[in-house]
Amino acid sequence: MNEHVQPVALEKAYRLLNHGPTVLVSARHGGVDNVMAAAWACALDFDPPKVTIVLDKIARTRALVEASGWLAIQVPTVGQAALTHRVGTQSLLDRPDKLASSGVVLHTLEGHPVPLVEGCSAWLMCRVIDEPHNQQAYDLFIAEVVAAWADDRAFRDGHWLFEQASPDWRSLHYVAGGQFYAIGEPVVIDPQG
Amino acid sequence: MNEHVQPVALEKAYRLLNHGPTVLVSARHGGVDNVMAAAWACALDFDPPKVTIVLDKIARTRALVEASGWLAIQVPTVGQAALTHRVGTQSLLDRPDKLASSGVVLHTLEGHPVPLVEGCSAWLMCRVIDEPHNQQAYDLFIAEVVAAWADDRAFRDGHWLFEQASPDWRSLHYVAGGQFYAIGEPVVIDPQG
Repeated sequence: MNEHVQPVALEKAYRLLNHGPTVLVSARHGGVDNVMAAAWACALDFDPPKVTIVLDKIARTRALVEASGWLAIQVPTVGQAALTHRVGTQSLLDRPDKLASSGVVLHTLEGHPVPLVEGCSAWLMCRVIDEPHNQQAYDLFIAEVVAAWADDRAFRDGHWLFEQASPDWRSLHYVAGGQFYAIGEPVVIDPQG
Repeated sequence: MNEHVQPVALEKAYRLLNHGPTVLVSARHGGVDNVMAAAWACALDFDPPKVTIVLDKIARTRALVEASGWLAIQVPTVGQAALTHRVGTQSLLDRPDKLASSGVVLHTLEGHPVPLVEGCSAWLMCRVIDEPHNQQAYDLFIAEVVAAWADDRAFRDGHWLFEQASPDWRSLHYVAGGQFYAIGEPVVIDPQG
């Protein structure tokens, strides 16, 4: 991490996910680290901030999340599109070198249980709220955000700066079949519109 | 509705929400119709398709959803940004003329319990799966998508066509404080990237 990585006030952490980006999920347990891509992550509450995220039973990352009770959600950038696609299509079960071969560099912050993926625009450290029925029936996890950070080149003072930043900082929005869109331009509301 | 509104195969309905757009939620019960904006809607499963959506207890729409067991989710366009902002900031409780004054035109499809908002790019008719604990503790609703449609000028053959369509068809992605972004350009994955 570097000097551009700044804490985000918890009551504004929902803004990191509010526009619906595809995210990376990292987890650590028993000496194993993993990272997966997930399109189905969503804000759930403002303060304390909570999120929902869908983690399929076949995902190795899910087992780490269930065993440790923690996960980190991060917002990857257009510059990380290939990395995001690779961690979303490869499994640690088939490829023990998945993280290295995908270009993932992990960074552990003192006092936090889950490593973060370097180069993202934002990070949310999350403690799982145990909800066994949701997890079993729907693969749906609820977690509380206990800390958040953003790169001040992409998000500052509670707002995304996509229109000012280099295009490589834009968030990714996955559809299917390898089809991603970048987030686009600000929309001006016309009160007469 | 018009000749451009085409059914979407249920197993592809998740693609209408996968890129994280802000949505409109419509509901009907006891002769009352309402529409609200929601940024916290997310796909939950592929087939049968399910979604999650957060509906605050103060929302009049939530009471209609709880009473009827149905809701419709629709994807508004950049051309509907002012409409989306108005239905997201006004309440039917304060403004009985909310829908008309917001520019909402509703359309009822034969055999479907919830009216749809005309002019959107996609629509998902959803039956609530009763999960009282999620609804009470988290304002979180789970619903199964029983039918879906899209305007073929914006979504066709299972894919969004934002790069070909008029810019007014792009989806809206809300941050906070009246700040919306439009969805942007396709991202090409560089296998060497």
